Amino acid sequence: MLRGSNLLRLADYNEAVVLDLIRRNPGKSRADLQRDSGLASQTISNITRRLIEAEMIRESAPSNTLRGRPSIPLAVNGSGTFSIGVHIDPARLTILLLDVAGEVRDWKQLRTPQATSPEDMTSLIAVSTGRLIRESGVDRDRVLGLGIAVPGPLDVRTGVVLDPPQLPKWRDVRLRADLHDATGMPVLLDKDVTASATAELRHSDDADFLFIYLGSGVGASVVTQGQVLRGVSNNIGEIGDILVDPSAEDLGWSGRRGGLAAACVPEALVIQASQAGLLPLPDLDDYLAIDDACTTLTELAASGNTVAQALLYRAAQRVAVGIGVLVNFLDVPRVVLGGPAWNRLASTFLPILEDAVRSELVVSRDVFSVVGSAVGEQIAAQGAAELVMDHFLAPRPSVLFMD
Amino acid sequence: MLRGSNLLRLADYNEAVVLDLIRRNPGKSRADLQRDSGLASQTISNITRRLIEAEMIRESAPSNTLRGRPSIPLAVNGSGTFSIGVHIDPARLTILLLDVAGEVRDWKQLRTPQATSPEDMTSLIAVSTGRLIRESGVDRDRVLGLGIAVPGPLDVRTGVVLDPPQLPKWRDVRLRADLHDATGMPVLLDKDVTASATAELRHSDDADFLFIYLGSGVGASVVTQGQVLRGVSNNIGEIGDILVDPSAEDLGWSGRRGGLAAACVPEALVIQASQAGLLPLPDLDDYLAIDDACTTLTELAASGNTVAQALLYRAAQRVAVGIGVLVNFLDVPRVVLGGPAWNRLASTFLPILEDAVRSELVVSRDVFSVVGSAVGEQIAAQGAAELVMDHFLAPRPSVLFMD
Repeated sequence: MLRGSNLLRLADYNEAVVLDLIRRNPGKSRADLQRDSGLASQTISNITRRLIEAEMIRESAPSNTLRGRPSIPLAVNGSGTFSIGVHIDPARLTILLLDVAGEVRDWKQLRTPQATSPEDMTSLIAVSTGRLIRESGVDRDRVLGLGIAVPGPLDVRTGVVLDPPQLPKWRDVRLRADLHDATGMPVLLDKDVTASATAELRHSDDADFLFIYLGSGVGASVVTQGQVLRGVSNNIGEIGDILVDPSAEDLGWSGRRGGLAAACVPEALVIQASQAGLLPLPDLDDYLAIDDACTTLTELAASGNTVAQALLYRAAQRVAVGIGVLVNFLDVPRVVLGGPAWNRLASTFLPILEDAVRSELVVSRDVFSVVGSAVGEQIAAQGAAELVMDHFLAPRPSVLFMD
Repeated sequence: MLRGSNLLRLADYNEAVVLDLIRRNPGKSRADLQRDSGLASQTISNITRRLIEAEMIRESAPSNTLRGRPSIPLAVNGSGTFSIGVHIDPARLTILLLDVAGEVRDWKQLRTPQATSPEDMTSLIAVSTGRLIRESGVDRDRVLGLGIAVPGPLDVRTGVVLDPPQLPKWRDVRLRADLHDATGMPVLLDKDVTASATAELRHSDDADFLFIYLGSGVGASVVTQGQVLRGVSNNIGEIGDILVDPSAEDLGWSGRRGGLAAACVPEALVIQASQAGLLPLPDLDDYLAIDDACTTLTELAASGNTVAQALLYRAAQRVAVGIGVLVNFLDVPRVVLGGPAWNRLASTFLPILEDAVRSELVVSRDVFSVVGSAVGEQIAAQGAAELVMDHFLAPRPSVLFMD
């Protein structure tokens, strides 16, 4: 398998440095690489030759320079190396194929089967991954591995999903090992918010932002000076219990009354909508039914239903209080919202969120913005695939463990 | 002045690397330094000779080794270089002399004059600093500079205190430039919470913790992987508005009802104590009177007054909710509390805080602790002095600006 030999050769630190420079800065010439890496001209020449032979990078047409030899731009070979990203949200299962140039080659979103055992989920992911790779015409041996983003809490070191409140049948699931057995691929497990922030960072010019994840649950991640914070146990971002409305109604729900989750996750929104007479209460053990009811609620608001609009407006105001807590605490200049539930809420939330958060800020800010993600609702799967690329291709070995 | 020549010589990056290694790891030999720095033997030899001549480091008695030349331990010369740290809390003004070995040579705490203009405060600090240096017998030319820790918000780049709610007469005060003019010393301005976390980090074995500052106000800072986060505008840590008790009583106070500040800062506690009939309401424009009343409240509790005990117990429970928000968000394994108001509250807070915070955590933790600071109530001044040392002596130039 090409993969094995790639990995062996990438044990060469200098080669990883050069490949990483090319991957992150397409168009660099050998002279650029020499200057940026501090390596000798002959070393750069040898490394780039080996990378070209392994089809990991390629040369473009030389550009004319005023003097001397023409400068040949180098770039990673998008068809040379791939990774798979998977995101398990309780309502939506996303599977994505990423190439080393950062392009999403294909992605699918399925409705997550409800009340499914971890074993059935593992089989479904393995089958769907195989189909995605086949349909895309990619050589499976060129796929470095599979990254999987899941709701926390989890143990990243051992690759175990602990006891996510939104996956009630999942307790201490060895998801990384099971997926490795089912696919034969190296598997990396990480939290949905961490994967999402990683994808956002890669597709943004900003090095400092707070990422708010909205799916079946709500979470947060922080990017500071270009680094994604992950927390000491890799479980950053549990923000659902933050109190945002002391006078909030009782939802008869497991989440904290008046908390951020009770203010904005689909399950809480559809309970509120049901209490307001907007729609019948769906089966709350069925995240698909909840997700569909949430879609109905946002469609009602879009079609002019003022009760639905007021409900979502109130939700946005409450979310602003929660974001205000985090911005006041960490002093970040930018907030980015994304995740599977975000697109449906964006049209109500975005017009009011920035001003509403500003009114919560203790320190006045000239530069402050609240925006929607640039990546799209596949963001967590894309980030999981990016994390696999980083694990194998970045010159500093990741702390993450893989099966 | 020796200081000037020191600074010029420290422009030599290699010399700064070597001095920093010695400063942070007392007892290193030249062979250790050669290995740790990657510098050549002759370079180490030249640099250590120059540092000894400048009285910045010294040799200790050689230890016997089994073979070869005896190994001579090197350490910074504690009498060679100093810095001053100042902390302006609305109730307490702290001035501290630190030596380069990290020892506090002397410190004074004054009652902060109330309703004082920034000009009078600058003069008081300049006079008190001069007296502290004289009384300690230190050569003023060996003092690198003065670091000053203040409540936020502030503009660290320009050295301006913006509009701290607890210093109502202070608006856009050019404190760094004014203190430079008044003392003739380089001056560094930073936030009280950032300075405190810096001092805690230097005196702790932990590289990841949340620091909760309790003075006339409440704030937080975060240390992650040995780095103190400061926020993009250096204004990290505004946590007073975090809702901690939806049913909290109305204090008729400027802070957010039910918020963390209303739960635990001395001003809010004495209002609560007055409402409970424990003591007469002091003049709330007088932080000294508030501070004294807070002392009375804690003494009442210590002497067995059950109403005072219940009031402080409730405060601790509320603080635990706020700390829970931050721990859930950032996934930190340790919380450290400190600052000028901490010592008086510790005996009530510490016995219950860890369990109370644990009950707020979404992710269960094997390793989690809530502890009091190892440094003491001079922590912010000490941290400000440490920041000055780092600014001048660390091999990576700080982003901080100085007058």
